[in-house]
Amino acid sequence: MSKTTLAVIAAVSAGAGAAATAAMYSMRSEKRLEAPQSTTATTSTTTTVTTTAKPPVPASQVFTPPTPPLPPAVTSGPVNPAGLFEYGFPGPVADLAHRSALISSFDRRTRNPHWVVEHITPASLSQRSGDRKNSAFLEDPSIPEKFRAKLNDYFRSGYDRGHQVPAADCKWSQKAMDDTFYLSNMCPQVGDGFNRDYWAHVEDFCRRLTQRYPSVRIVTGPLYLPRRDPADGKWYVKYEMIGNPPNVAVPTHFYKVIFAEEGDGPNAGGKVALGAFVLPNAPIPNEKPLSDFEVPIEAIERASGLEFASKLPVQRRKRLCAETNCSIVVKEYAERQKAFGQQSK
Amino acid sequence: MSKTTLAVIAAVSAGAGAAATAAMYSMRSEKRLEAPQSTTATTSTTTTVTTTAKPPVPASQVFTPPTPPLPPAVTSGPVNPAGLFEYGFPGPVADLAHRSALISSFDRRTRNPHWVVEHITPASLSQRSGDRKNSAFLEDPSIPEKFRAKLNDYFRSGYDRGHQVPAADCKWSQKAMDDTFYLSNMCPQVGDGFNRDYWAHVEDFCRRLTQRYPSVRIVTGPLYLPRRDPADGKWYVKYEMIGNPPNVAVPTHFYKVIFAEEGDGPNAGGKVALGAFVLPNAPIPNEKPLSDFEVPIEAIERASGLEFASKLPVQRRKRLCAETNCSIVVKEYAERQKAFGQQSK
Repeated sequence: MSKTTLAVIAAVSAGAGAAATAAMYSMRSEKRLEAPQSTTATTSTTTTVTTTAKPPVPASQVFTPPTPPLPPAVTSGPVNPAGLFEYGFPGPVADLAHRSALISSFDRRTRNPHWVVEHITPASLSQRSGDRKNSAFLEDPSIPEKFRAKLNDYFRSGYDRGHQVPAADCKWSQKAMDDTFYLSNMCPQVGDGFNRDYWAHVEDFCRRLTQRYPSVRIVTGPLYLPRRDPADGKWYVKYEMIGNPPNVAVPTHFYKVIFAEEGDGPNAGGKVALGAFVLPNAPIPNEKPLSDFEVPIEAIERASGLEFASKLPVQRRKRLCAETNCSIVVKEYAERQKAFGQQSK
Repeated sequence: MSKTTLAVIAAVSAGAGAAATAAMYSMRSEKRLEAPQSTTATTSTTTTVTTTAKPPVPASQVFTPPTPPLPPAVTSGPVNPAGLFEYGFPGPVADLAHRSALISSFDRRTRNPHWVVEHITPASLSQRSGDRKNSAFLEDPSIPEKFRAKLNDYFRSGYDRGHQVPAADCKWSQKAMDDTFYLSNMCPQVGDGFNRDYWAHVEDFCRRLTQRYPSVRIVTGPLYLPRRDPADGKWYVKYEMIGNPPNVAVPTHFYKVIFAEEGDGPNAGGKVALGAFVLPNAPIPNEKPLSDFEVPIEAIERASGLEFASKLPVQRRKRLCAETNCSIVVKEYAERQKAFGQQSK
C-alpha cells in the first residue's frame, strides 16, 4: 500500500461557526515486523461458544473473539438493518492475546490494552532464568496493522513504554519475560517519578504479597478519567495522543485490581483478598501512602466499562488492605534495582 | 443498594508532585425504569457461532455477545493467568440491541453507542404511521445500570439527546419510531447549528438517496478526535462528560458511513456506492458544502477502532459522491420540518 495521506475533519472551536482544522491520518505502508514469532499467528476462531467452553488451543495462541451471533436476517418490518453485516461486522474487536506470562485485551481505539492479566506465586518469582537484557520491545503482529501501537509512536514522545505486566514478574523463563515486551502490554507512562519510581514500588508491593499469599492474580490497565475545569465547572476528559500521526492515547491514570488467594486456586473456594488501586500517570512522591490510592472495585468498573470479580461471591471476599499492610517499600526496591537493573522502564 | 459515594483519584497536575483531586463516582441506587418494554429483556446467548450463523432469535431481542472462548487452563509455565477468568471475564462487553428499526452497539466506557445501524428504502420511508409526539426518550434497560446513560445525565447539560438513527427514518410504525428513542441510540449533540440544523440536513440527504437507490444502509456513531494544541504542538483528545457524577462523554465528532445499494440487497452482488462523512459536534453554517466533510472510510476506521465494509470486494464499490450530488438541501428540509415537526431534537 502506498503512503497515502488522509484528512479527517478534526477538532473545532466551541464558538459559532465551524472552524475545522484537519487532523492527518496517514495510511502507513504495511511494514514487515522485526522478528515475528511463531507463537503469534493470528487465528480466526469459529467455534462453539458456551459459558464453560475451553477449546484446546495452544498455550501461546493469539486469537480474536468470534463475531457475535448475528441478528436474524428477517424482521417484521419493511427494513432489514442486519443486512449490513453481510459487508462485515463493524466490531469493536478486543484482540485477546494469550501468552505464557500474560493475557491481554487490546483497545483498537486508544491503541492501549483494556487490561492485562498476570499470575504470580512464590514459586514463579523464585525462578530467575529470564533477563530483560535479552528482551526487546516489539510491536504486536497479532493486531491488524492499522490499529497497532508502533515503536515509532513512543520514539521521542517523552513517555516510557510502560509495562502493564511487569517484566520483573516474569523471570521464570526468558520466553515469559519476552512476552511482556509486546507493545500490547504497554501504555505510555510518565517515567521519572512514576514508571521508574512510585509505580515500580507498587509492582514490588504486589510481588511482596506472595510472602503471605500462595497465589496472587493482578489485572492492570489504563484509565481516562475526567477532571473538573475550575474555569467553567464542567468535567473534561483530556489526554495526549502520541505518534505522528497521533496514534496512541496517554492514559490519565492506571488501575490495578489484585486478587490475593488464600486457597490453592480460584476454584478451591478459599477466601480472596481484593485490592483495587488507581494512580495518576504523573510523578508521585514516595512519601505518599499507597492506601491513598485504594478505591472500591466498582469505581474502576464504572470508569473503565469493565467488570472484575463478577463471579466471586461476596462471602469469599476480603479487603486486602484490611488483611495486610498496603504500603510501598522504597528501600527494598532500591536494592532490587541495584541487583537486577531498572525494572519497568 | 444504598446511595454510596465512591472517591476515585482523578486528574492530576502535570507538574511535579501528585496534586490529586478527587472525582466522585456515586453508586446510584437502582432505579425502576419507566415503561420497561417487553421487547427489551436481556438474554444471555450461549450458542454455536460461525461466520454464517444466524440463530433464530426474535426480531426485537436484545442480547449480549458471548464471552470469548476462554484461554486454556493449563500452560507450560509455573503460572496460570487464565485462572482469573474463574472470577468473571472483565470484558469489554459491547451491548448489542437488535430492535425493529435499528441495531446498536453500546460502549460501556463512554456511555454512547459505538455505532447504530439502520436501513431505509423508498417503501419504508413512504409509510408514515409513526409520530414522534407519541414517543418518549427512554433509558435502555438492556444495559447494566452502572454502565447506562441516564435521562438525568442529559438534563440541563446544554446538549440535545441526539438521535444516531433519526426518528424521521422510522415512521413506518410507531414501534419502530419508539425504538429510536432509547438513549443507546443517542449521543450528546450540540443543538443549535448542528443537531437541529446541519446534522438534520445530512440526515435528510441520506433519505433523499432513496430517490436514486432502492436500498440505503447507514452506520452512524461518535468519534473522539485529537486536535493539535498550538501552545505545545502536541495532540490532545478532549471531551466533556455530562451528568453528575460525570457519566456520558460528549463526542467531538460524528461519522456516517453510507452504503447505497444498486441491487436488491447485500447478497445480490450489485454495486454499492460508499460514502463516509465526519462532522464536528459544533455549529456548522448551512453554506458549508457537505463534500467538505467527506473522508475515506479508513480514516473513520482508524479513529473509531471499527471496521466497515471489510467483506465488500473492491470491484463492487463505487464512490457515492462521484455517483450522486453530495449536498444538503436546506429549503426542502425546512418544508419538511414544517410538515412533520422538528426531526432530530
